[in-house]
Amino acid sequence: MELIQSGGSIDKIFLQKGINKDFETEIRQACRTYGIPMQYVPKEKLNRLCGQNHQGVVGYISLVEYKKLEDIIPFIYEQSSVPLFLLLDGITDVRNFGAIARSAELCGVQAIIIPQKGGAAINEDAIKTSAGALTKINVCRETSLRKSIEQLKLNGIKVVGASLEATQPIYDLDMQMPTAIVLGSEGKGISRDVSKLLDDQFLIPQVGTTNSFNVSVAAGITLYEVLRQRQS
Amino acid sequence: MELIQSGGSIDKIFLQKGINKDFETEIRQACRTYGIPMQYVPKEKLNRLCGQNHQGVVGYISLVEYKKLEDIIPFIYEQSSVPLFLLLDGITDVRNFGAIARSAELCGVQAIIIPQKGGAAINEDAIKTSAGALTKINVCRETSLRKSIEQLKLNGIKVVGASLEATQPIYDLDMQMPTAIVLGSEGKGISRDVSKLLDDQFLIPQVGTTNSFNVSVAAGITLYEVLRQRQS
Repeated sequence: MELIQSGGSIDKIFLQKGINKDFETEIRQACRTYGIPMQYVPKEKLNRLCGQNHQGVVGYISLVEYKKLEDIIPFIYEQSSVPLFLLLDGITDVRNFGAIARSAELCGVQAIIIPQKGGAAINEDAIKTSAGALTKINVCRETSLRKSIEQLKLNGIKVVGASLEATQPIYDLDMQMPTAIVLGSEGKGISRDVSKLLDDQFLIPQVGTTNSFNVSVAAGITLYEVLRQRQS
Repeated sequence: MELIQSGGSIDKIFLQKGINKDFETEIRQACRTYGIPMQYVPKEKLNRLCGQNHQGVVGYISLVEYKKLEDIIPFIYEQSSVPLFLLLDGITDVRNFGAIARSAELCGVQAIIIPQKGGAAINEDAIKTSAGALTKINVCRETSLRKSIEQLKLNGIKVVGASLEATQPIYDLDMQMPTAIVLGSEGKGISRDVSKLLDDQFLIPQVGTTNSFNVSVAAGITLYEVLRQRQS
């Protein structure tokens, strides 16, 4: 409870099924307050994870320290940087996530925003694939991408996303102003709920017949285009 | 011998050490003529590969059919396409190779040129990572990248390469004309021999502190920039 309440970065909490009701309520409410994913599991699973000595609850300490989007936005404006955010919607592959973080850090993204549920694990593989970028870049794990998008828009940040159905090529989209880019998964694209909130959509041009770019390549192209527009 | 002489695509030939001299000479010369990598191995290795029934020689049939650069260049000009080639210098990682092929096909690259020695294997993993692009795009396996570059230049194709030491950002480099792009490995970059032959070098801009882009992301950015210049 102390670790949760101190805001320490916890990736996930496993709680023993059928544990003392008061304790269950306390943990459940704290997880909700601090945005930590929680899952009920049988006692045997906890035993496997760390022997008998667990008192019914096991937490995974995160390898990165999550930041809060609400703390980061004013900080960026204070530094007179032009905001550039990346929201990952349904990107579950650890290596793609790592490669995206690497490009993001190289292109000056100030924070990667990931959802509390359904994102890739930030494990050692992710950090390795990111070439260490994940230890340098801000990562915000938010309870709802939709709320994050509303928060970004309230702060004057344009929210745009790649879509295979868009007609406007990315090089015609002005990204010199404060911008947040949403990337969806390769299979499903951006989820419908999130898609509705976008200020604009763009297409990464392609002339071949293969289905689409790998998502980490699409991220690299998009972030490069932002740099190109802002530099040239 | 028939398969070799028919120009069939063979990835590699293993020849038994100490085999009959005439046979050895025949295979060795044919491999040289047709640009097939050959390696001497003990009989036990051949036994492991395909039981006892091998007569001292085992070849790996390639999953893709290699083309000849000299056949492809005139074909492209006949089609009035603007040439766009990709040369891979020392890229050995199968997944990176597959991801690069995927972006290349999507961006209209007419052929990927790889060296006979030291390139990534075109195995099932590469084809899967390429999302099938490797079965669609031309792949030329050439005995010497230097000779290929000379051949490209003789045909009026500008040969350029990414380098972390270049000062010219890629968006300032004109790639609307016939262009071949050389990509080096992440660790070593473009080899010195090849580097000397480049008509121009460019830098992919970066503002972060991570070492550099993943090579498949760098390929995607470079090829996107060609498309952007040629389309917009």
